Amino acid sequence: MLSTTSRTTLNRSKERGRTSRDDLYAVLDAGLICHLGVVVDGAPRVVPTGYGRVGDTLYLHGSTGSVSLRGTGEVCVTVTHVDGVVLARSVFNHSMNYRSAMIYGRPRLVLDEDERLAGLRAITEQLAPGQWDAARTPTRKELAATAVVALSLTEASVKVRQGPPSDEPEDYALPVWAGVLPLRLSWGAPETDPAMTSEVEVPEHVSSRPAPGR
Amino acid sequence: MLSTTSRTTLNRSKERGRTSRDDLYAVLDAGLICHLGVVVDGAPRVVPTGYGRVGDTLYLHGSTGSVSLRGTGEVCVTVTHVDGVVLARSVFNHSMNYRSAMIYGRPRLVLDEDERLAGLRAITEQLAPGQWDAARTPTRKELAATAVVALSLTEASVKVRQGPPSDEPEDYALPVWAGVLPLRLSWGAPETDPAMTSEVEVPEHVSSRPAPGR
Repeated sequence: MLSTTSRTTLNRSKERGRTSRDDLYAVLDAGLICHLGVVVDGAPRVVPTGYGRVGDTLYLHGSTGSVSLRGTGEVCVTVTHVDGVVLARSVFNHSMNYRSAMIYGRPRLVLDEDERLAGLRAITEQLAPGQWDAARTPTRKELAATAVVALSLTEASVKVRQGPPSDEPEDYALPVWAGVLPLRLSWGAPETDPAMTSEVEVPEHVSSRPAPGR
Repeated sequence: MLSTTSRTTLNRSKERGRTSRDDLYAVLDAGLICHLGVVVDGAPRVVPTGYGRVGDTLYLHGSTGSVSLRGTGEVCVTVTHVDGVVLARSVFNHSMNYRSAMIYGRPRLVLDEDERLAGLRAITEQLAPGQWDAARTPTRKELAATAVVALSLTEASVKVRQGPPSDEPEDYALPVWAGVLPLRLSWGAPETDPAMTSEVEVPEHVSSRPAPGR
Protein backbone atom coordinates (compact mmCIF):
# COMPACT_ATOMS: atom_id res chain seq x y z
CA MET A 1 0.00 0.00 0.00
CA LEU A 2 1.11 3.54 -0.71
CA SER A 3 1.24 6.26 1.94
CA THR A 4 -1.72 8.38 2.97
CA THR A 5 -0.12 11.61 4.11
CA SER A 6 -2.02 14.84 3.49
CA ARG A 7 -0.06 15.52 0.31
CA THR A 8 -0.38 12.06 -1.19
CA THR A 9 -4.13 11.94 -0.56
CA LEU A 10 -6.01 13.20 -3.61
CA ASN A 11 -8.34 16.15 -3.13
CA ARG A 12 -10.05 15.83 -6.49
CA SER A 13 -10.71 13.03 -8.97
CA LYS A 14 -10.20 10.58 -6.12
CA GLU A 15 -11.37 7.74 -8.37
CA ARG A 16 -8.12 8.19 -10.30
CA GLY A 17 -5.97 7.32 -7.30
CA ARG A 18 -4.14 4.02 -7.18
CA THR A 19 -2.95 2.66 -3.90
CA SER A 20 -0.68 -0.32 -4.52
CA ARG A 21 3.10 -0.21 -4.67
CA ASP A 22 2.96 -2.25 -7.88
CA ASP A 23 1.08 0.62 -9.54
CA LEU A 24 3.87 2.96 -8.43
CA TYR A 25 6.58 0.64 -9.74
CA ALA A 26 4.75 0.26 -13.07
CA VAL A 27 4.59 4.04 -13.65
CA LEU A 28 8.22 4.56 -12.64
CA ASP A 29 9.64 1.60 -14.54
CA ALA A 30 7.94 2.71 -17.79
CA GLY A 31 9.49 6.19 -17.76
CA LEU A 32 12.55 7.78 -19.29
CA ILE A 33 12.64 11.03 -17.35
CA CYS A 34 11.17 12.54 -14.24
CA HIS A 35 10.59 16.18 -13.36
CA LEU A 36 12.50 16.98 -10.19
CA GLY A 37 11.14 19.84 -8.12
CA VAL A 38 13.36 21.64 -5.62
CA VAL A 39 13.18 24.93 -3.76
CA VAL A 40 16.03 27.36 -4.50
CA ASP A 41 16.03 30.69 -2.64
CA GLY A 42 12.40 30.15 -1.72
CA ALA A 43 11.23 29.62 -5.31
CA PRO A 44 10.40 26.36 -7.07
CA ARG A 45 12.61 24.92 -9.77
CA VAL A 46 11.53 22.02 -11.98
CA VAL A 47 14.24 20.14 -13.85
CA PRO A 48 13.83 17.20 -16.24
CA THR A 49 16.30 14.44 -15.43
CA GLY A 50 16.86 10.70 -15.64
CA TYR A 51 16.36 8.31 -12.75
CA GLY A 52 16.54 4.67 -11.78
CA ARG A 53 14.79 2.47 -9.23
CA VAL A 54 16.17 -0.26 -6.99
CA GLY A 55 13.44 -1.73 -4.81
CA ASP A 56 11.89 1.11 -2.83
CA THR A 57 14.62 3.62 -3.60
CA LEU A 58 14.78 6.06 -6.49
CA TYR A 59 18.22 7.21 -7.60
CA LEU A 60 19.03 10.52 -9.28
CA HIS A 61 22.39 11.81 -10.39
CA GLY A 62 24.02 14.96 -11.59
CA SER A 63 27.15 17.00 -11.55
CA THR A 64 28.57 17.52 -8.06
CA GLY A 65 28.02 21.24 -8.77
CA SER A 66 24.32 20.84 -9.58
CA VAL A 67 22.12 23.34 -7.78
CA SER A 68 19.17 20.95 -7.99
CA LEU A 69 20.98 18.10 -6.23
CA ARG A 70 23.07 20.19 -3.88
CA GLY A 71 20.53 20.76 -1.16
CA THR A 72 19.29 18.45 1.54
CA GLY A 73 15.85 20.00 1.43
CA GLU A 74 12.66 18.35 0.35
CA VAL A 75 12.05 17.43 -3.26
CA CYS A 76 9.11 16.29 -5.31
CA VAL A 77 9.72 13.88 -8.18
CA THR A 78 6.96 13.49 -10.75
CA VAL A 79 6.84 10.95 -13.60
CA THR A 80 4.07 11.40 -16.16
CA HIS A 81 2.96 9.34 -19.16
CA VAL A 82 0.42 10.97 -21.47
CA ASP A 83 -1.59 8.16 -23.08
CA GLY A 84 -4.14 10.14 -25.07
CA VAL A 85 -6.28 13.21 -25.47
CA VAL A 86 -9.86 12.86 -24.22
CA LEU A 87 -12.28 14.73 -26.48
CA ALA A 88 -15.57 15.37 -24.74
CA ARG A 89 -18.85 16.86 -25.93
CA SER A 90 -18.14 19.94 -23.82
CA VAL A 91 -14.93 21.95 -23.64
CA PHE A 92 -15.13 21.70 -19.84
CA ASN A 93 -14.87 17.90 -19.81
CA HIS A 94 -11.88 17.64 -22.13
CA SER A 95 -9.13 15.75 -20.41
CA MET A 96 -6.13 13.52 -20.90
CA ASN A 97 -5.54 9.86 -20.32
CA TYR A 98 -2.37 9.54 -18.30
CA ARG A 99 -0.45 7.67 -15.65
CA SER A 100 1.50 9.73 -13.14
CA ALA A 101 3.43 9.24 -9.95
CA MET A 102 4.56 11.83 -7.41
CA ILE A 103 7.15 11.13 -4.75
CA TYR A 104 7.92 13.45 -1.86
CA GLY A 105 10.93 13.24 0.37
CA ARG A 106 14.31 14.42 1.48
CA PRO A 107 17.00 12.81 -0.66
CA ARG A 108 20.10 11.33 0.89
CA LEU A 109 23.49 11.93 -0.71
CA VAL A 110 24.88 8.47 -1.42
CA LEU A 111 28.45 8.07 -0.16
CA ASP A 112 28.97 4.32 -0.14
CA GLU A 113 30.83 3.41 -3.36
CA ASP A 114 28.91 0.17 -3.93
CA GLU A 115 25.57 1.92 -3.59
CA ARG A 116 26.74 4.76 -5.81
CA LEU A 117 27.61 2.25 -8.54
CA ALA A 118 24.31 0.41 -8.07
CA GLY A 119 22.44 3.71 -8.33
CA LEU A 120 24.31 4.79 -11.47
CA ARG A 121 23.74 1.36 -12.99
CA ALA A 122 20.00 1.65 -12.32
CA ILE A 123 19.89 5.15 -13.85
CA THR A 124 21.81 3.97 -16.94
CA GLU A 125 19.68 0.85 -17.37
CA GLN A 126 16.46 2.86 -17.03
CA LEU A 127 17.56 5.12 -19.89
CA ALA A 128 19.28 2.49 -21.98
CA PRO A 129 18.82 -1.13 -20.89
CA GLY A 130 21.85 -3.28 -21.62
CA GLN A 131 24.25 -0.36 -21.87
CA TRP A 132 25.93 -0.69 -18.47
CA ASP A 133 27.53 -3.93 -19.63
CA ALA A 134 28.06 -2.75 -23.23
CA ALA A 135 29.78 0.59 -22.64
CA ARG A 136 32.89 1.57 -20.74
CA THR A 137 32.09 1.87 -17.03
CA PRO A 138 32.94 5.06 -15.11
CA THR A 139 36.49 5.93 -14.18
CA ARG A 140 37.45 7.12 -10.73
CA LYS A 141 37.58 10.67 -12.06
CA GLU A 142 34.13 10.43 -13.66
CA LEU A 143 32.73 9.00 -10.43
CA ALA A 144 34.25 11.85 -8.43
CA ALA A 145 32.44 14.37 -10.66
CA THR A 146 29.07 12.67 -10.17
CA ALA A 147 26.68 13.16 -7.28
CA VAL A 148 24.22 10.33 -6.64
CA VAL A 149 21.23 10.87 -4.38
CA ALA A 150 18.69 8.37 -3.09
CA LEU A 151 15.04 9.12 -2.50
CA SER A 152 12.90 6.69 -0.55
CA LEU A 153 9.60 5.74 -2.18
CA THR A 154 7.88 5.98 1.19
CA GLU A 155 5.67 9.00 0.49
CA ALA A 156 4.17 8.62 -2.96
CA SER A 157 0.92 8.82 -4.87
CA VAL A 158 -0.20 7.44 -8.21
CA LYS A 159 -2.95 8.83 -10.40
CA VAL A 160 -4.29 7.16 -13.53
CA ARG A 161 -7.00 8.19 -15.99
CA GLN A 162 -7.98 5.85 -18.81
CA GLY A 163 -11.06 5.41 -20.98
CA PRO A 164 -13.62 7.55 -22.79
CA PRO A 165 -14.77 11.05 -21.80
CA SER A 166 -17.14 11.64 -18.94
CA ASP A 167 -19.71 14.19 -20.07
CA GLU A 168 -22.65 15.90 -18.37
CA PRO A 169 -25.81 13.77 -18.72
CA GLU A 170 -27.58 16.38 -20.88
CA ASP A 171 -24.62 16.61 -23.28
CA TYR A 172 -24.75 13.01 -24.53
CA ALA A 173 -27.50 14.01 -26.97
CA LEU A 174 -25.29 16.64 -28.66
CA PRO A 175 -24.17 15.85 -32.22
CA VAL A 176 -20.53 16.22 -31.23
CA TRP A 177 -18.00 13.47 -31.84
CA ALA A 178 -16.49 12.27 -28.57
CA GLY A 179 -13.74 9.80 -27.87
CA VAL A 180 -10.04 9.38 -27.30
CA LEU A 181 -7.11 10.22 -29.56
CA PRO A 182 -4.41 7.83 -28.30
CA LEU A 183 -0.82 9.01 -28.09
CA ARG A 184 1.82 6.42 -28.96
CA LEU A 185 5.55 6.28 -28.30
CA SER A 186 7.89 4.25 -30.46
CA TRP A 187 11.59 3.94 -31.18
CA GLY A 188 12.87 5.08 -34.54
CA ALA A 189 15.64 3.25 -36.38
CA PRO A 190 18.96 3.51 -34.50
CA GLU A 191 21.20 6.24 -35.95
CA THR A 192 24.84 5.20 -35.90
CA ASP A 193 27.30 7.90 -34.80
CA PRO A 194 29.08 9.10 -37.97
CA ALA A 195 32.26 9.21 -35.90
CA MET A 196 32.33 5.42 -35.43
CA THR A 197 35.88 4.28 -36.26
CA SER A 198 35.16 0.56 -36.54
CA GLU A 199 32.37 -1.56 -37.97
CA VAL A 200 30.19 -2.54 -35.01
CA GLU A 201 26.68 -3.84 -35.53
CA VAL A 202 23.82 -2.20 -33.70
CA PRO A 203 23.43 -4.44 -30.64
CA GLU A 204 20.25 -6.46 -30.17
CA HIS A 205 19.33 -4.61 -26.95
CA VAL A 206 19.23 -1.37 -28.96
CA SER A 207 17.67 -2.56 -32.23
CA SER A 208 15.02 -4.69 -30.49
CA ARG A 209 14.30 -2.47 -27.52
CA PRO A 210 10.66 -2.90 -26.43
CA ALA A 211 8.34 0.03 -27.12
CA PRO A 212 8.75 2.81 -24.56
CA GLY A 213 6.20 4.07 -22.08
CA ARG A 214 4.70 0.73 -21.07
CA MET B 1 16.02 37.56 -26.89
CA LEU B 2 15.29 35.60 -23.74
CA SER B 3 16.11 36.87 -20.26
CA THR B 4 19.48 36.47 -18.61
CA THR B 5 18.66 36.39 -14.93
CA SER B 6 20.81 34.20 -12.67
CA ARG B 7 18.32 31.37 -12.85
CA THR B 8 17.84 31.40 -16.60
CA THR B 9 21.57 31.48 -17.27
CA LEU B 10 22.89 27.95 -17.74
CA ASN B 11 25.65 26.82 -15.39
CA ARG B 12 26.53 23.70 -17.33
CA SER B 13 26.24 22.54 -20.94
CA LYS B 14 26.03 26.19 -21.95
CA GLU B 15 26.27 25.19 -25.61
CA ARG B 16 22.79 23.73 -25.25
CA GLY B 17 21.23 27.08 -24.42
CA ARG B 18 19.01 28.85 -26.93
CA THR B 19 18.36 32.51 -26.65
CA SER B 20 15.62 33.54 -29.06
CA ARG B 21 11.96 33.90 -28.19
CA ASP B 22 11.11 31.84 -31.30
CA ASP B 23 12.97 28.88 -29.77
CA LEU B 24 10.85 29.30 -26.63
CA TYR B 25 7.61 29.47 -28.61
CA ALA B 26 8.59 26.39 -30.64
CA VAL B 27 9.16 24.27 -27.51
CA LEU B 28 5.96 25.47 -25.86
CA ASP B 29 3.75 25.19 -28.94
CA ALA B 30 4.85 21.58 -29.56
CA GLY B 31 3.85 20.37 -26.09
CA LEU B 32 0.78 18.78 -24.57
CA ILE B 33 1.58 19.18 -20.89
CA CYS B 34 3.88 21.14 -18.66
CA HIS B 35 5.16 20.33 -15.20
CA LEU B 36 4.11 23.11 -12.84
CA GLY B 37 6.28 23.58 -9.77
CA VAL B 38 4.93 25.39 -6.73
CA VAL B 39 5.99 25.66 -3.10
CA VAL B 40 3.42 24.40 -0.58
CA ASP B 41 4.28 24.68 3.12
CA GLY B 42 7.91 25.21 2.19
CA ALA B 43 8.19 22.06 0.09
CA PRO B 44 8.15 21.70 -3.69
CA ARG B 45 5.23 20.18 -5.53
CA VAL B 46 5.38 19.26 -9.22
CA VAL B 47 2.08 18.75 -11.02
CA PRO B 48 1.55 17.76 -14.68
CA THR B 49 -1.05 19.99 -16.30
CA GLY B 50 -2.18 21.44 -19.62
CA TYR B 51 -1.41 24.96 -20.77
CA GLY B 52 -1.88 27.38 -23.62
CA ARG B 53 0.04 30.34 -25.01
CA VAL B 54 -1.19 33.68 -26.28
CA GLY B 55 1.72 35.87 -27.36
CA ASP B 56 4.05 36.24 -24.40
CA THR B 57 1.60 34.89 -21.85
CA LEU B 58 1.17 31.30 -20.74
CA TYR B 59 -2.23 30.31 -19.36
CA LEU B 60 -2.90 27.53 -16.87
CA HIS B 61 -6.22 26.49 -15.41
CA GLY B 62 -7.60 24.33 -12.68
CA SER B 63 -10.33 23.94 -10.14
CA THR B 64 -10.85 27.06 -8.02
CA GLY B 65 -9.99 24.77 -5.08
CA SER B 66 -6.64 23.68 -6.55
CA VAL B 67 -3.76 23.94 -4.10
CA SER B 68 -1.29 24.34 -6.97
CA LEU B 69 -3.06 27.39 -8.45
CA ARG B 70 -4.27 28.92 -5.19
CA GLY B 71 -1.11 30.77 -4.22
CA THR B 72 0.31 33.98 -5.54
CA GLY B 73 3.85 32.73 -4.95
CA GLU B 74 6.44 32.01 -7.55
CA VAL B 75 6.11 29.08 -9.87
CA CYS B 76 8.35 27.29 -12.34
CA VAL B 77 6.79 25.81 -15.46
CA THR B 78 8.84 23.26 -17.40
CA VAL B 79 7.98 21.76 -20.78
CA THR B 80 10.16 18.87 -21.97
CA HIS B 81 10.29 16.89 -25.20
CA VAL B 82 12.46 13.76 -25.18
CA ASP B 83 13.67 13.19 -28.75
CA GLY B 84 15.97 10.24 -28.29
CA VAL B 85 18.39 8.31 -26.15
CA VAL B 86 22.05 9.06 -26.77
CA LEU B 87 24.16 5.92 -26.49
CA ALA B 88 27.81 6.73 -25.96
CA ARG B 89 30.94 4.59 -25.80
CA SER B 90 31.15 5.29 -22.08
CA VAL B 91 28.37 5.07 -19.50
CA PHE B 92 29.35 8.54 -18.31
CA ASN B 93 28.57 10.19 -21.66
CA HIS B 94 25.15 8.65 -22.12
CA SER B 95 22.58 11.37 -22.56
CA MET B 96 19.27 12.30 -24.09
CA ASN B 97 18.31 14.40 -27.04
CA TYR B 98 15.67 16.81 -25.87
CA ARG B 99 14.12 20.25 -26.12
CA SER B 100 13.07 21.92 -22.89
CA ALA B 101 11.83 25.26 -21.67
CA MET B 102 11.68 26.63 -18.14
CA ILE B 103 9.65 29.67 -17.17
CA TYR B 104 9.85 31.41 -13.82
CA GLY B 105 7.40 33.92 -12.51
CA ARG B 106 4.56 34.92 -10.27
CA PRO B 107 1.26 34.04 -11.95
CA ARG B 108 -1.61 36.48 -12.01
CA LEU B 109 -5.15 35.27 -11.35
CA VAL B 110 -7.14 36.28 -14.42
CA LEU B 111 -10.36 38.07 -13.50
CA ASP B 112 -11.41 39.72 -16.76
CA GLU B 113 -14.01 37.48 -18.39
CA ASP B 114 -12.76 38.05 -21.95
CA GLU B 115 -9.21 37.17 -20.98
CA ARG B 116 -10.43 34.14 -19.02
CA LEU B 117 -12.21 32.86 -22.13
CA ALA B 118 -9.19 33.59 -24.33
CA GLY B 119 -6.99 31.71 -21.87
CA LEU B 120 -9.31 28.71 -21.72
CA ARG B 121 -9.57 28.69 -25.48
CA ALA B 122 -5.77 28.65 -25.78
CA ILE B 123 -5.50 25.79 -23.25
CA THR B 124 -8.20 23.78 -25.07
CA GLU B 125 -6.67 24.38 -28.49
CA GLN B 126 -3.20 23.42 -27.27
CA LEU B 127 -4.56 20.06 -26.09
CA ALA B 128 -7.04 19.51 -28.90
CA PRO B 129 -6.87 21.94 -31.83
CA GLY B 130 -10.27 22.62 -33.36
CA GLN B 131 -12.23 21.51 -30.32
CA TRP B 132 -13.15 24.96 -28.95
CA ASP B 133 -15.41 25.47 -31.95
CA ALA B 134 -16.54 21.83 -32.17
CA ALA B 135 -17.61 21.19 -28.57
CA ARG B 136 -20.07 22.94 -26.26
CA THR B 137 -18.45 26.03 -24.75
CA PRO B 138 -18.40 26.54 -20.97
CA THR B 139 -21.50 27.51 -19.04
CA ARG B 140 -21.53 30.26 -16.45
CA LYS B 141 -21.41 27.59 -13.74
CA GLU B 142 -18.46 25.77 -15.33
CA LEU B 143 -16.61 29.06 -15.68
CA ALA B 144 -17.25 29.88 -12.03
CA ALA B 145 -15.64 26.59 -11.02
CA THR B 146 -12.51 27.25 -13.09
CA ALA B 147 -9.49 29.31 -12.07
CA VAL B 148 -7.37 30.72 -14.90
CA VAL B 149 -3.92 32.09 -14.21
CA ALA B 150 -1.54 33.96 -16.51
CA LEU B 151 2.23 33.63 -16.40
CA SER B 152 4.38 36.10 -18.30
CA LEU B 153 7.06 34.56 -20.51
CA THR B 154 9.50 37.26 -19.37
CA GLU B 155 11.91 35.04 -17.42
CA ALA B 156 12.54 31.90 -19.40
CA SER B 157 15.31 29.64 -20.64
CA VAL B 158 15.46 27.06 -23.41
CA LYS B 159 17.83 24.11 -23.61
CA VAL B 160 18.22 21.80 -26.59
CA ARG B 161 20.45 18.79 -27.20
CA GLN B 162 20.43 17.07 -30.58
CA GLY B 163 22.87 14.88 -32.46
CA PRO B 164 25.27 12.02 -31.80
CA PRO B 165 27.08 11.29 -28.54
CA SER B 166 30.07 13.28 -27.44
CA ASP B 167 32.69 10.85 -26.15
CA GLU B 168 36.11 11.23 -24.59
CA PRO B 169 38.80 11.36 -27.32
CA GLU B 170 40.42 8.09 -26.17
CA ASP B 171 37.06 6.24 -26.25
CA TYR B 172 36.41 6.60 -29.98
CA ALA B 173 38.68 3.60 -30.63
CA LEU B 174 36.56 1.30 -28.43
CA PRO B 175 34.58 -1.41 -30.26
CA VAL B 176 31.32 -0.15 -28.75
CA TRP B 177 28.34 0.82 -30.92
CA ALA B 178 27.44 4.46 -30.41
CA GLY B 179 24.59 6.51 -31.74
CA VAL B 180 21.08 7.71 -31.11
CA LEU B 181 17.88 5.75 -30.59
CA PRO B 182 15.20 8.27 -31.66
CA LEU B 183 11.94 8.47 -29.74
CA ARG B 184 8.84 9.13 -31.84
CA LEU B 185 5.37 10.31 -30.89
CA SER B 186 2.35 9.55 -33.02
CA TRP B 187 -1.42 9.56 -32.77
CA GLY B 188 -3.22 6.24 -32.74
CA ALA B 189 -6.56 5.75 -34.51
CA PRO B 190 -9.32 7.80 -32.82
CA GLU B 191 -11.40 5.66 -30.43
CA THR B 192 -15.07 6.67 -30.57
CA ASP B 193 -16.81 6.88 -27.18
CA PRO B 194 -19.03 3.76 -26.93
CA ALA B 195 -21.66 6.03 -25.35
CA MET B 196 -22.17 8.04 -28.58
CA THR B 197 -25.93 8.27 -29.14
CA SER B 198 -25.82 9.49 -32.74
CA GLU B 199 -23.72 8.70 -35.79
CA VAL B 200 -21.14 11.44 -36.01
CA GLU B 201 -18.04 11.02 -38.14
CA VAL B 202 -14.64 11.59 -36.60
CA PRO B 203 -13.92 15.21 -37.50
CA GLU B 204 -11.04 16.02 -39.82
CA HIS B 205 -9.19 18.02 -37.15
CA VAL B 206 -9.06 14.85 -35.02
CA SER B 207 -8.44 12.19 -37.68
CA SER B 208 -5.81 14.26 -39.51
CA ARG B 209 -4.15 15.90 -36.54
CA PRO B 210 -0.46 16.52 -37.31
CA ALA B 211 2.03 14.35 -35.44
CA PRO B 212 2.60 15.57 -31.88
CA GLY B 213 5.77 16.91 -30.34
CA ARG B 214 6.99 18.98 -33.29
